[in-house]
Amino acid sequence: MQAMTEHECRQFLLERPRTASLATVRADGRPHVAPIWFDLEGDTMLFTTWHTTVKARNMRHNPCVSLSVDDETPPFAFVLLEGEAHLGDELAEVRHWATRIAGRYMGAALAEAYGTRNGVPGELLVRVQLTHIIGQKEIAG
Amino acid sequence: MQAMTEHECRQFLLERPRTASLATVRADGRPHVAPIWFDLEGDTMLFTTWHTTVKARNMRHNPCVSLSVDDETPPFAFVLLEGEAHLGDELAEVRHWATRIAGRYMGAALAEAYGTRNGVPGELLVRVQLTHIIGQKEIAG
Repeated sequence: MQAMTEHECRQFLLERPRTASLATVRADGRPHVAPIWFDLEGDTMLFTTWHTTVKARNMRHNPCVSLSVDDETPPFAFVLLEGEAHLGDELAEVRHWATRIAGRYMGAALAEAYGTRNGVPGELLVRVQLTHIIGQKEIAG
Repeated sequence: MQAMTEHECRQFLLERPRTASLATVRADGRPHVAPIWFDLEGDTMLFTTWHTTVKARNMRHNPCVSLSVDDETPPFAFVLLEGEAHLGDELAEVRHWATRIAGRYMGAALAEAYGTRNGVPGELLVRVQLTHIIGQKEIAG
């Protein structure tokens, strides 16, 4: 097992369209985790979510989030991130990021269609101001 | 997007050695998430962890856990699980499951070596009694 540099962590997050697992805390104190599509801009991780999802409800109540992005094949690697989530509903921004994020995961040809579908009132743009990033590589094998 | 049956969820969890993202809650109320290797036996999800890890400390304090296992390629799919974690340190059991779990992720040839390395005092066996399993498939594309 070997620690990644911060540069390696950022490269790992962007080199392929990997999903992130977003962990939040419910009002009753239980954890919740679900996969998301994301993008990165400086020290901000961005994703969109519908306003009624469990994750949206949890972040409104407790903005502390933890994220994991991993490579699940040998020799295995992961990056863990922590930060505070800020929710926004400005439609032009939601549509811009929904399009850009869909482009990462579905390809440029489908980006616009997904951006139009997801860039609607009710969809939220979540900006996570990252406070911690660590990564480990060469975990096994 | 289409809901998976419980049979499809179990098949998804076991058909390939996918990692799970384990979410726990810290004593200060912040979430934590990290990837794990796991196996499944009936309604119990099993994994091992070193006794000083953040996840072990969190589960001792708050046994409620949430897990996500996903396919990060189109058309995308995920299974979310919730349950209560029970920690054990019985060495024969730790070694048995460490070997079996390593076999899933590293192959039969390396299972024994990993089981011996991980099946030592200080490593804990975590059994999660699952209370909820849901899955979604054909999410995009």
